[in-house]
Amino acid sequence: MGSFPGHALPGSFFLLFGLWWSVKYPLKYLSRRMKTNCYSRLFYQRLELIEGLVKVIFSLVGILAEQFDNGFHMPLINGEDHSWMKLKNWQHFTVYLFYGLSGMVDVLTYFPFKVPVGLDRLSLSLAEFFEGFIFYFHVHNRSELDQYIHSVLLVAVFGGAFTIFLEVFMREQVVLEFFRTSLTIIQGTWFWQIAFVLYPPSGIPEWNQQDHNNIMFITICFCWHYAIALILMSISYSLVYCFVKRRRWYNSEMDVGIQKLNSDKDAKAALLAGSEEE
Amino acid sequence: MGSFPGHALPGSFFLLFGLWWSVKYPLKYLSRRMKTNCYSRLFYQRLELIEGLVKVIFSLVGILAEQFDNGFHMPLINGEDHSWMKLKNWQHFTVYLFYGLSGMVDVLTYFPFKVPVGLDRLSLSLAEFFEGFIFYFHVHNRSELDQYIHSVLLVAVFGGAFTIFLEVFMREQVVLEFFRTSLTIIQGTWFWQIAFVLYPPSGIPEWNQQDHNNIMFITICFCWHYAIALILMSISYSLVYCFVKRRRWYNSEMDVGIQKLNSDKDAKAALLAGSEEE
Amino acid sequence: MGSFPGHALPGSFFLLFGLWWSVKYPLKYLSRRMKTNCYSRLFYQRLELIEGLVKVIFSLVGILAEQFDNGFHMPLINGEDHSWMKLKNWQHFTVYLFYGLSGMVDVLTYFPFKVPVGLDRLSLSLAEFFEGFIFYFHVHNRSELDQYIHSVLLVAVFGGAFTIFLEVFMREQVVLEFFRTSLTIIQGTWFWQIAFVLYPPSGIPEWNQQDHNNIMFITICFCWHYAIALILMSISYSLVYCFVKRRRWYNSEMDVGIQKLNSDKDAKAALLAGSEEE
Amino acid sequence: MGSFPGHALPGSFFLLFGLWWSVKYPLKYLSRRMKTNCYSRLFYQRLELIEGLVKVIFSLVGILAEQFDNGFHMPLINGEDHSWMKLKNWQHFTVYLFYGLSGMVDVLTYFPFKVPVGLDRLSLSLAEFFEGFIFYFHVHNRSELDQYIHSVLLVAVFGGAFTIFLEVFMREQVVLEFFRTSLTIIQGTWFWQIAFVLYPPSGIPEWNQQDHNNIMFITICFCWHYAIALILMSISYSLVYCFVKRRRWYNSEMDVGIQKLNSDKDAKAALLAGSEEE
Repeated sequence: MGSFPGHALPGSFFLLFGLWWSVKYPLKYLSRRMKTNCYSRLFYQRLELIEGLVKVIFSLVGILAEQFDNGFHMPLINGEDHSWMKLKNWQHFTVYLFYGLSGMVDVLTYFPFKVPVGLDRLSLSLAEFFEGFIFYFHVHNRSELDQYIHSVLLVAVFGGAFTIFLEVFMREQVVLEFFRTSLTIIQGTWFWQIAFVLYPPSGIPEWNQQDHNNIMFITICFCWHYAIALILMSISYSLVYCFVKRRRWYNSEMDVGIQKLNSDKDAKAALLAGSEEE
Repeated sequence: MGSFPGHALPGSFFLLFGLWWSVKYPLKYLSRRMKTNCYSRLFYQRLELIEGLVKVIFSLVGILAEQFDNGFHMPLINGEDHSWMKLKNWQHFTVYLFYGLSGMVDVLTYFPFKVPVGLDRLSLSLAEFFEGFIFYFHVHNRSELDQYIHSVLLVAVFGGAFTIFLEVFMREQVVLEFFRTSLTIIQGTWFWQIAFVLYPPSGIPEWNQQDHNNIMFITICFCWHYAIALILMSISYSLVYCFVKRRRWYNSEMDVGIQKLNSDKDAKAALLAGSEEE
Repeated sequence: MGSFPGHALPGSFFLLFGLWWSVKYPLKYLSRRMKTNCYSRLFYQRLELIEGLVKVIFSLVGILAEQFDNGFHMPLINGEDHSWMKLKNWQHFTVYLFYGLSGMVDVLTYFPFKVPVGLDRLSLSLAEFFEGFIFYFHVHNRSELDQYIHSVLLVAVFGGAFTIFLEVFMREQVVLEFFRTSLTIIQGTWFWQIAFVLYPPSGIPEWNQQDHNNIMFITICFCWHYAIALILMSISYSLVYCFVKRRRWYNSEMDVGIQKLNSDKDAKAALLAGSEEE
Repeated sequence: MGSFPGHALPGSFFLLFGLWWSVKYPLKYLSRRMKTNCYSRLFYQRLELIEGLVKVIFSLVGILAEQFDNGFHMPLINGEDHSWMKLKNWQHFTVYLFYGLSGMVDVLTYFPFKVPVGLDRLSLSLAEFFEGFIFYFHVHNRSELDQYIHSVLLVAVFGGAFTIFLEVFMREQVVLEFFRTSLTIIQGTWFWQIAFVLYPPSGIPEWNQQDHNNIMFITICFCWHYAIALILMSISYSLVYCFVKRRRWYNSEMDVGIQKLNSDKDAKAALLAGSEEE
């Protein structure tokens, strides 16, 4: 969909997932590391199931939006002269399709079909790879700025595909999970950036598609998006850190029960010991 | 062989291997994971020996087909003006040759020459690499569509070479084995696609070799082929899952022997316990 | 800053870090390997904290130098015709920004926020990657020599980014640390080389920007820079080796205390045994 | 050295090392695996020392040959017009230099300076990388065939650099050692091929530098070179296998001493048991 909402929609999907992961992975990491009693393996498995379902729903919404763009009937072949029709829509359809398949693998992993661990990561990696593969040949015959702004996206897309492929072999590696989160956030914000640059809403002046300065700015802008993604993740990490710390304190107070008098001192000591452990 | 059967033949070889692996690897994985008594290491070693032999035979068939194409005598140098002859046939010959060598390494691994484990994977990886290497320089001076449809194949070929190279170090990694299977299936179906696009059998209209829309469709089509490969693998996984599950039930019934009366309940319980284990 | 000091400044930063690491990593490696009592984990953690602070300061210096170049006020958008301004300065600003962020992560790792181990390496790797990313699009519309001398730098930059990314998963791998050190030194010396080639100080004749021989020489020159980096590292390794060896001897003499008479023979024996251990 | 011997000399160096490794690594692998008493760690460490010395000597020979080509005095800068001189010779000098440095690291690893294990592999990997780096920019302004035949070499060179870099982390991985050996052999034979194609000795007709068929043949020819390298390695593996097997038999006969009568049966049984072990 060569339009503002056609880029804003996938951008929002990626942004939602990125922001959600920027809460989930720090929570998972910190509750395990700070040995709180609120970490449970089953809880995170259920979260992954829900994530898979949301992925499937987002993909369906994306596919239906593509269809709606064409009046709920999207032909592939023009009956008259046997030429291809709506190829760009079918490209977007394909991208959504692979994310949908990835969501379905997430769901299947939860159910007792003994799907090998790691297949969910592989399918997500493939979805990102095919997104990049299609985008790589997507921008033929367009203006220089259009080509460039899409090719910059490929850095995030193929970087994401590679990172998730590594996760097949290094599951639960917290640095890779954080890295994937940052790449997902920037993909989301960058889709919005593309929407604003290529299809500026009425009222905003259009970008000069041929000006080389615009291309230079786009390069810098991509880096700033990433810096913003990092800052967002730092904020969310700090909030989760405070939440987990407070919760642990609260829990330890509950535990001590009647030994109320000396509890405060103990809890503080435990806290201090905890924060000094490597 | 710039002809329909010249692409259909290798396509069928890859497809046969891909489909066979889509049965073999789930079977191997599930019989080990579900702790059936039908898993035996020796059985799979013998299968690999047979696979090696089949690879050698397929390579010989391919080489002979190339020769037959030239009346059982394929000259390399033209005696008159010292120019090269039949270079395309010799290219195909070379591709088959490396798959043949890979098959021979598979066979040698079985026999007691103490060939290092992993050498069979390395030789298969090299065969895929040289296939890609030759294809990369294969399409010089051809139409845009011809070049493009072959270069898309390279994604599957080099992806396969990389995956199999990883298997040298991570043998028996089930996710890599599944991934290799999917890349082999798509290589097979894509060879058939090339045959239909470039050398349409009589009765089917020819493709416009210059139309950019055809190139865009080819990109999407490759993704759909992969989606089909994934669906084929899911079906075959499900069938194997049912087969292994039923077999285990049957086996456990056999074991209990005269304790027939309470066997059903036990078997069901064992089944449930099995399907709940991580 | 398209000027001599604009390249000499970052060059000095990289060189300082490279030379410092060429002392620090051999010291760390040898004091651990030779089982001296002067190795302490805490000491090296504090060193990393100081390194992080120095990185932040260097980045601030770099950013302020860019500002000073523009009279302490660097506009991004020209108010009159809405065109971009000072894009090259903003590019350099962005590069410094990411190194500053990397320094901040180093500092945070030290404090008790339980930042995951490896995140400091990832952020440094990202800083190098974005440096390369910006440089890759930096040299558009410049002379051939200018483009080439910057693209040669990318080999060191992306090589460094890759090496540091590996360190996320293989922390404390001494070979990787040495390799990173050599790539940092060559980045430093190469920035100085760029400064001398593109902005020769007054008195030195200018380079012919179009002569292909200059480009050929630049390739060789880069290799020689690397050879010099290796020689520098060997010298510093040898010095540290002698220092650690002498210190161990001295320490063992201190330990024996009153058993002065037979201490020399023992210390020598211990030393010999130490140097013979694999 | 744009001449026949200038390519034949490095080709012979690589070929010698490749063939030697094709004996050494199977011997090392089989004597360890077949539990003969002729495997000793020290023996292979000394071999590596000698290899390092030979590398240094080969590099010196190469450097001196470059000098001799210019009458024992190779200027870099032309005093008259400050232009670069003999850049191609200096490029070859640089390649030899890095192999010489790699040899020196091998030698240093043996002596008790506690040089980190893996640094010898890294330095060899860097030598290959810089060889490829220089070759990549070596062939500017030459005929198409010249460029192509050198760029094909880069596949072996960068493949080798990558393989040896992997060996830094997976030392003594026998499959990687065999792979490196094959890449070294093909590099050697390919240098000879370049010598024959570009500088045919008198009596052999010259190659047409522009004919595209020649380029196509070169691609196939490279694959055949690799197939020959594999066959050479198989022969040498088989010979070593027979040698180690016979030696083990002989040794076991020596051991049994006076129990001569029943020794033959035992030795055979031990042999059979040995060849059946996984």
